[in-house]
Amino acid sequence: MARSFQKLNEEKVFKDPVHRYIHVRDRLIWDLIGTPEFQRLRRIRQLGTTFLTFHGAEHSRFGHSLGVYEIARRVIDIFKYRNHWDDSETMIALCAALLHDVGHGPFSHSFEKVFGTNHEEYTQKIILGDTEIHRLLEEQGEGFAGKVADVIGKTYPNRLVVSLISSQIDADRMDYLLRDAYFTGVSYGHFDMERIWRVMRTQDDQIVFKLSGMHAVEDYIMSRYQMYWQVYFHPVTRSAEVILTQILHRAKVLFHEGFRFKYAPFPLIKIFKGEMALKDYLKLDESVILYFFQAWQEEKDPILSDLCCRFMNRRLFKYVEFTPSLIESKDQLAGAFRDAGIDPDYYLEVDSSSNSPYDLYRPGEEGERQPIQLLMPDGTLHELSQESDVVGSITGMRRTDVKLYYPKDRVFELSEHASCREQIQKILGI
Amino acid sequence: MARSFQKLNEEKVFKDPVHRYIHVRDRLIWDLIGTPEFQRLRRIRQLGTTFLTFHGAEHSRFGHSLGVYEIARRVIDIFKYRNHWDDSETMIALCAALLHDVGHGPFSHSFEKVFGTNHEEYTQKIILGDTEIHRLLEEQGEGFAGKVADVIGKTYPNRLVVSLISSQIDADRMDYLLRDAYFTGVSYGHFDMERIWRVMRTQDDQIVFKLSGMHAVEDYIMSRYQMYWQVYFHPVTRSAEVILTQILHRAKVLFHEGFRFKYAPFPLIKIFKGEMALKDYLKLDESVILYFFQAWQEEKDPILSDLCCRFMNRRLFKYVEFTPSLIESKDQLAGAFRDAGIDPDYYLEVDSSSNSPYDLYRPGEEGERQPIQLLMPDGTLHELSQESDVVGSITGMRRTDVKLYYPKDRVFELSEHASCREQIQKILGI
Amino acid sequence: MARSFQKLNEEKVFKDPVHRYIHVRDRLIWDLIGTPEFQRLRRIRQLGTTFLTFHGAEHSRFGHSLGVYEIARRVIDIFKYRNHWDDSETMIALCAALLHDVGHGPFSHSFEKVFGTNHEEYTQKIILGDTEIHRLLEEQGEGFAGKVADVIGKTYPNRLVVSLISSQIDADRMDYLLRDAYFTGVSYGHFDMERIWRVMRTQDDQIVFKLSGMHAVEDYIMSRYQMYWQVYFHPVTRSAEVILTQILHRAKVLFHEGFRFKYAPFPLIKIFKGEMALKDYLKLDESVILYFFQAWQEEKDPILSDLCCRFMNRRLFKYVEFTPSLIESKDQLAGAFRDAGIDPDYYLEVDSSSNSPYDLYRPGEEGERQPIQLLMPDGTLHELSQESDVVGSITGMRRTDVKLYYPKDRVFELSEHASCREQIQKILGI
Amino acid sequence: MARSFQKLNEEKVFKDPVHRYIHVRDRLIWDLIGTPEFQRLRRIRQLGTTFLTFHGAEHSRFGHSLGVYEIARRVIDIFKYRNHWDDSETMIALCAALLHDVGHGPFSHSFEKVFGTNHEEYTQKIILGDTEIHRLLEEQGEGFAGKVADVIGKTYPNRLVVSLISSQIDADRMDYLLRDAYFTGVSYGHFDMERIWRVMRTQDDQIVFKLSGMHAVEDYIMSRYQMYWQVYFHPVTRSAEVILTQILHRAKVLFHEGFRFKYAPFPLIKIFKGEMALKDYLKLDESVILYFFQAWQEEKDPILSDLCCRFMNRRLFKYVEFTPSLIESKDQLAGAFRDAGIDPDYYLEVDSSSNSPYDLYRPGEEGERQPIQLLMPDGTLHELSQESDVVGSITGMRRTDVKLYYPKDRVFELSEHASCREQIQKILGI
Repeated sequence: MARSFQKLNEEKVFKDPVHRYIHVRDRLIWDLIGTPEFQRLRRIRQLGTTFLTFHGAEHSRFGHSLGVYEIARRVIDIFKYRNHWDDSETMIALCAALLHDVGHGPFSHSFEKVFGTNHEEYTQKIILGDTEIHRLLEEQGEGFAGKVADVIGKTYPNRLVVSLISSQIDADRMDYLLRDAYFTGVSYGHFDMERIWRVMRTQDDQIVFKLSGMHAVEDYIMSRYQMYWQVYFHPVTRSAEVILTQILHRAKVLFHEGFRFKYAPFPLIKIFKGEMALKDYLKLDESVILYFFQAWQEEKDPILSDLCCRFMNRRLFKYVEFTPSLIESKDQLAGAFRDAGIDPDYYLEVDSSSNSPYDLYRPGEEGERQPIQLLMPDGTLHELSQESDVVGSITGMRRTDVKLYYPKDRVFELSEHASCREQIQKILGI
Repeated sequence: MARSFQKLNEEKVFKDPVHRYIHVRDRLIWDLIGTPEFQRLRRIRQLGTTFLTFHGAEHSRFGHSLGVYEIARRVIDIFKYRNHWDDSETMIALCAALLHDVGHGPFSHSFEKVFGTNHEEYTQKIILGDTEIHRLLEEQGEGFAGKVADVIGKTYPNRLVVSLISSQIDADRMDYLLRDAYFTGVSYGHFDMERIWRVMRTQDDQIVFKLSGMHAVEDYIMSRYQMYWQVYFHPVTRSAEVILTQILHRAKVLFHEGFRFKYAPFPLIKIFKGEMALKDYLKLDESVILYFFQAWQEEKDPILSDLCCRFMNRRLFKYVEFTPSLIESKDQLAGAFRDAGIDPDYYLEVDSSSNSPYDLYRPGEEGERQPIQLLMPDGTLHELSQESDVVGSITGMRRTDVKLYYPKDRVFELSEHASCREQIQKILGI
Repeated sequence: MARSFQKLNEEKVFKDPVHRYIHVRDRLIWDLIGTPEFQRLRRIRQLGTTFLTFHGAEHSRFGHSLGVYEIARRVIDIFKYRNHWDDSETMIALCAALLHDVGHGPFSHSFEKVFGTNHEEYTQKIILGDTEIHRLLEEQGEGFAGKVADVIGKTYPNRLVVSLISSQIDADRMDYLLRDAYFTGVSYGHFDMERIWRVMRTQDDQIVFKLSGMHAVEDYIMSRYQMYWQVYFHPVTRSAEVILTQILHRAKVLFHEGFRFKYAPFPLIKIFKGEMALKDYLKLDESVILYFFQAWQEEKDPILSDLCCRFMNRRLFKYVEFTPSLIESKDQLAGAFRDAGIDPDYYLEVDSSSNSPYDLYRPGEEGERQPIQLLMPDGTLHELSQESDVVGSITGMRRTDVKLYYPKDRVFELSEHASCREQIQKILGI
Repeated sequence: MARSFQKLNEEKVFKDPVHRYIHVRDRLIWDLIGTPEFQRLRRIRQLGTTFLTFHGAEHSRFGHSLGVYEIARRVIDIFKYRNHWDDSETMIALCAALLHDVGHGPFSHSFEKVFGTNHEEYTQKIILGDTEIHRLLEEQGEGFAGKVADVIGKTYPNRLVVSLISSQIDADRMDYLLRDAYFTGVSYGHFDMERIWRVMRTQDDQIVFKLSGMHAVEDYIMSRYQMYWQVYFHPVTRSAEVILTQILHRAKVLFHEGFRFKYAPFPLIKIFKGEMALKDYLKLDESVILYFFQAWQEEKDPILSDLCCRFMNRRLFKYVEFTPSLIESKDQLAGAFRDAGIDPDYYLEVDSSSNSPYDLYRPGEEGERQPIQLLMPDGTLHELSQESDVVGSITGMRRTDVKLYYPKDRVFELSEHASCREQIQKILGI
C-alpha cells in the first residue's frame, strides 16, 4: 500500500488527564474525531451506571477512544524505532484504535440485553455503512474502511495489528484501566505502562514481552483483577444496571401491549419493533434515555414510574448473596412478593458476575484471546503462568459472584401484608 | 441552639479523586445527599460547555458539592481543635456547604442570560420551598432551613460561617480549583490547601491567614488567575456557549412566533412563557436540553436546525479579537452577513471575559467579597497586597478579553456571494 | 498511668512528600526528634545500596521514622474516634513508632553480617542506655523508656500497641512501601492506605480488618510482593551489597593481620576488636564508611583498594543464576579464579534472596508475625487466605533467587591466563 | 562535523521519579555516566543543607544531571521533528547537559565562600583536564571536549545549543524546579513542561516561545519565584549554611594558627594552603566533610567543636530580621556578645538573599541571561513582560531578605552575664 496520508500543518493536541496530551498529526485522524458519529461518544459514559457508585466516573467513551489511539500511536513509534513495524499498516492501526468503540450505544450492557443489539456489529456498520466516518476512510483508497473494520473484527491478516487493539494487553485495556482508575479515584488500576511498552517485542506476528518485564506484566494482571472486582462488578453499579434493564424491558412490554405513553419514546419505537436502522441508532445517546426516564416518572404505569423514579433519584435495590439455600426458596420468595403486590418479574432479579484473573485458554472476557507469551533470553517463548509464580497460582481460577437484588424499602413498607413481609425477611435473612 | 443531630451508626464514605474520601457521619447530610433535588446535580456538569474544549471536564456539580462539604468539614475540625469554632454552627455550615449550588440549572450561564433566571434565587427556593431538602432541614427544628439559606445568601449574622462558604478563599473556590484542574488535566490550579488550612485563623468573625502562610495564599491567587484564563475563559468554550445561547434564544423566539415544533419542548414551555414553577425547574437538567438539541436538528427552521447541529457535533464558531477597528466596522460586517443570507443576530456575537487576579475592593467575580487579611506576628491585620510583592503588583489590574464569534465555514462557502465574502474576509482579516 | 504529657504551644509540622505533612503536637516527640541519636538517622540511607540501582533512593531513615510516627498517630486518632483505644497508651505507641529504627547503623545488612551486630539490640540499648533519648523518656516517669523498648521488642503486654508497630500490616511497613515507591519512582508499592485504616478494627488485642476491605488488603500484599522482587531484592543492589560486605570483611582481616593502613579506620577499630561501646556505635554513619572507602582506594592491599574503587565508582560485579549445574562446578570455578590470580574468597560470592508473598505461619521476614484476620459480618474472624482467592492461591508459596556474583571485567582482562578465562567462561556460560 | 557516534545495542534506562525514565541510546553518554568523576555526584546533595529544613531533600546532583540530559534529549527530539535542529550538534548538547554541574563540590555555596573556589571553573577543568571524562570526550575527535566545555561556558558559537543549557527557561532550570519540588514535597515548582516544549521555537539562534504558550511560561516564572522564597532561601537552610561556613572558616584559621587537630583533615589541607590540584578536588564529597565535622566535635577548640556539634545535631542558629535599627546597633551587639564570652566573628552573622521574579536585564541569578521572547502570530518577537500582565507587573521588582543569625540558646544560658543577656535581648527584641 503505497498510499501517502496527509499530515496536518501543525500538530494538534488534546489535553488529557491520563496521557497528559493526545497528539494528532494526521488529517484523517483529525477529521474522524470531528464526525458526528465520533462526537456522539461524548454523550455515552465509559462506565455506564458506575457514576452512581463512584461519582467521579462520569467520563465518556470519547476520551477513552482518544486514549486508545494515543497508546497505539506511541507503541507504534517504539516499534518503528526498533524496525519491528510495517509503516504501511500505521494508519489502519490508528484508525482501528480510534474507532474500536464507535458502535457503543447508551448503557450498552442493559440495552443489548433487552433489545438484542450488539455494539460490535454497530461498530462494523458505522465503519462500513452510510456515515461520515465511512466516507472519510474510503477517501484514503477503496477498501480502506474494510481493512479498519477487519482489524476491529479480528479478521485482519496481520495479527500484529490486531493484537495491538485486542489482546490480553492491548491499547484498549491499558487505557481503560488507567482512565477508569483516574476518574473513579481508586488506587488500583495503576501499572507501569511505559515499562510494558519497552519490553514489548514482536515475534511471529504477535506481541510478546521480554522476561525482564515479567513483573510489570504481573502487576498489570493484578491491577486488572482488582479493577474488575472493585469497580466494574461493584454490586451497587449492578443494582443500577438491574433497574435500568427492567425499565427498558417494562417500556418495551408496555409498548407492545398498546400502552398510551404520556411521553412517547419516539427514538425508541423502532427498536421496540425490532426494525432499527443505522441512522436511528446513531441518534441514541444517554441524554435520550435519561430524558425519557425523567419524563416517565409521571407515567400512569406504576412499575415504569416507580423504576424510573428509583433510577433518577438513586433509590436502588439492595442485595443479598444468592446462596444455595436461597436458590431453593426462590419460587417461594417470588410467591410472597406477588402476594404482597410486588411484581417479582421486575422487583426480584438475580445478577451474576464472573471473572478470572488470568486464564490460559479463556484469558479475558472473550474466549478467543491468546495467552501472554514471555520472550526468554534464549529466544524461545514461554507462556506467562509457567514463569510467574503469582500468575501461575491464580491461572484458571474463576471467581463468581451471584447476588439477588430487591427493593428493601418496599419490603419494609409492607404494613398491610405483614405475613408476606415476615416470610420475605426470613428467606432473605434481613 | 442546643439541638443535637443524629449520627450515623457507621461513617459512610464516597471515593473522591480530589479529596480521596468524602466522610459523612451525620444522618442529615446523608439524607440530604439522597434527595431528588441533590441527585439532580449529577445531571448538570460543573463546567457547562468546557467539556467541548477539555474532554476530561465531564464532571458534575454533584462531586463538587460533596467536595465543598468535605473541605468545610475538615476546616471546621481544625477550628474546633483550636477552640475557634462554635460547635452549634457546625451543621448549619455543613448543610450550607453541601447545598450552596443546588439551584444550578443546566448550562446556567446561557440559560440565565436568555431566560433571566438566577441560580442563586433557585437555591434559596429549593431550601425554603416545597422540597425534600426543605422538609429534612426543618425536621431539625423550625427555622433551620432559613438559617442555611441565610448562610448561602450571605445574610447570616455569624460572618465566620458565611466566609467559610463564600469569601476570597472559601471551601467553594478551593474545591473547584482543585477539582477542575484534576478533571481537565491542566497543571494549573494546584496549591497547598492543607497549608492554607493550617495558617487559617479566626478573628473578628472573619477568616484571616498567618503571615507565615503568605506564600501559599499567593500561590492560590496565581492558580486562580491561571485557571480563569486557561480554562474558564477559554475561547473555544465561549464559542460553544455563544451557540448554546443562540439556540435557546431562537427556540424562545420561534415559540412566541407560533412555530410548530416537530419536537415540542414541553419542559421548556413554561420558561418560554416566563411562568416557571419550582417543580418545573427541578425537572430541567442537561439531558433535557441535549435531548431537544439533538431532536431539533430535524426542525424546519434553518437557524435552529443549523445551530443545534453545530452544538451537537462540535462545529463551533471561530473568533477574532474584537479590536477597536473591528468595533467601527461592526455594522458594515452585519450588513455583509445579512446580504449573504446569514442572520447576524444569530451568527455574529461579541463575547467578553474580564477578570482581575486580585482586587482590593472587587476582588472576585462578585463585588462584595472582602480582601484577604494577613495576621501579623504582633496581632494586627494587614491586607494581603501590602505584604505580598507579587500580589501587590497585580492588585487592581484588570484584564479584559473581547472576541467576535462567527461561522468561518459559512463564510468560506459563500460562493454565490463572492463580494460579501471578500468584504467579510477583509473586515475580519481572515 | 495518669501521667499527662506536655503539649506544644503550637503544632509543628514537617513537610513530607509521602504524607504531605507530619504533625507534631507533643513536646516529647519534638524533643526526641531533636536528639543527636535521632538526627543521626539523617546520615543512614533507608535502602542502603539501593541508590546505586535506583538513583532516587537516597532517602534516609530519618524521614521513614517520622512517617511511621505519623501513620501511628493517624491510626490512633481513628481508633480513638471509635473508642477502640486506651489513651494512656498513646505516647508509648507514638514513641515506639518514632524510635523503632533508631538502632540502625550504616548499611546495616552488610555490617551485621561481618561484625555480628544487631540493629534491634542497639535500638534497645539506645532507648535504655546512656543517651539523650533515654533521659527524655525517663523524664516522663520512671520505667517509661522500658515500656517503649518493650513495644519495639514485642514483649509489651498490650498486644494492640505492639501490632500497631510490628505486624503484617503495621505502620512501619505501610510507610516504607509508600516511601520507597515514591523515592525510587516505581509504580509498585501503592495501595489504599486510608481504606485500610478505615476497615481496621481492634479485637482480642489485635488489629483485624473488616471483610469489606479485603481487596485493599490483597492489594497491599501484592504491592509488598512486587516491591520485594522489583526493588529490595534487585540483583544490582545485591551486587553492591556483596562488594560492601567484602570490603568490611577485608578491612577486618587486614586489621587482625596487622596491616598498616594509610588511613587507619579509627571509628571502626573497636568493632574490629569486638568491643564496641554504645557511644562508639553512635558515631558510625554512612559518611564514616564512605570516607574510608574513598580513602582506601589508595591503600596498598590490592583487594581492599580494588573493592573500594568498585564500590565508589559503581563498577559492580555481574551475576549469573546459581543453577544446580553451577553448584556442582563451584569448586572448579574457584580453582580457576585462584589460578588466574583472582581471590575467590573476595571475588566469587553466592547471594540468595527468598520471600513469600504471604505465609500463614511465617508471613513476613520474621517468623513470629501473626496471620491477617478478617472480621466477618457475623463477628467471627477468618484468616485472610481462607477468604481471598488470590492470597489463598499464593499462600505458603516461597520464591528463592540465588545468584553468583563475580567481576566480569576481570575475567575478560585475563589475557595472560587464557585457559583460565576460557574455563571460567565455559562454567559461567558467558 | 561528520563524526558518527556509536549507539548502544539496546537502549538503557534509569528509573527516575521526575521523568519516569531516563533513556540512554548512545555509548558515549553511557560511558560518561560510568566515570568516577560523574559517579562522585551521587555524594553531593543537590540542595546542600536544605535537607535540614525539608527532610525529603536528600537527593544528589547525580539524578539532577541525568534529568537535565533527559530534558535536553527530548527537546532536541522535538526540534528535530520540526527540522529546527542541526543534528551534528546533538551529542555536544547532550554531553553539555549531562556534565554542566560536574564541577560542583560538597556544599558548594559555603565552600566557595571560604576557599574562593568556583564550581564552574572546576567543571571546565574536569572536561578539559586529566580525567576519564576528558579521555572519553576526546575519543570522539580532537577538540570535542573543548566544544562541550564552551557550551557550558556559554562561549560556544551556536547560541541555540547554549540556550538549551543556560537561559531563562533551560533544561537545567526545568529539571531542578520539578525535581526539587518532588523531593521536598512542596506543591510549588510544578508547571506544564510538555506544553513549554511544544511552544518552543528556534529563531535567530535563540529559543523563543509561541504566544499561545504564554500562560505556561508565566506559570513557570511564578513557580520559580515561589521555589526561591519557599525552598531555596528558606531561613532555616540559610542558618545551617551560616554554621557550615563558620566551621570551614574556623578550621582554616586554626590550621594556619598551627592548631594540632586530633583528626587532621588530610583531604582539606591543600585547600587550606590554597594549592589544591584537580585530583585532590575530585576526592572531596559530602562524606569527607561530614566525617570531619563528626570527628571535630571532639576537638579541643571550643568554637570548632561547638559549631560541628550544632551542625551534626541540627542545633541551628535562630534569626531576626536585620532591620535598620538593628544595623545601627550591630557594633553594640557584637560588644555584648564579646563581653559575654561569645565570639561574634563566629556567632553573629548577617545573611542576605535577594531575587527578582523576572527581570528584563538581570533576569536570573546571573546577570547575562537574555529576556524571554514571545513569537507573535505575525512572526515578530515581543519580550515577555510586554505581553504578560502578570509578568509585566513584577518585572524588575527585587525582593531582598536580610537576617541576622545567632545562637539563641547560648544567649538564654548567659546566667553569669545577666546584664549582657538583657542588653542582647533588648537589641534583638527577643
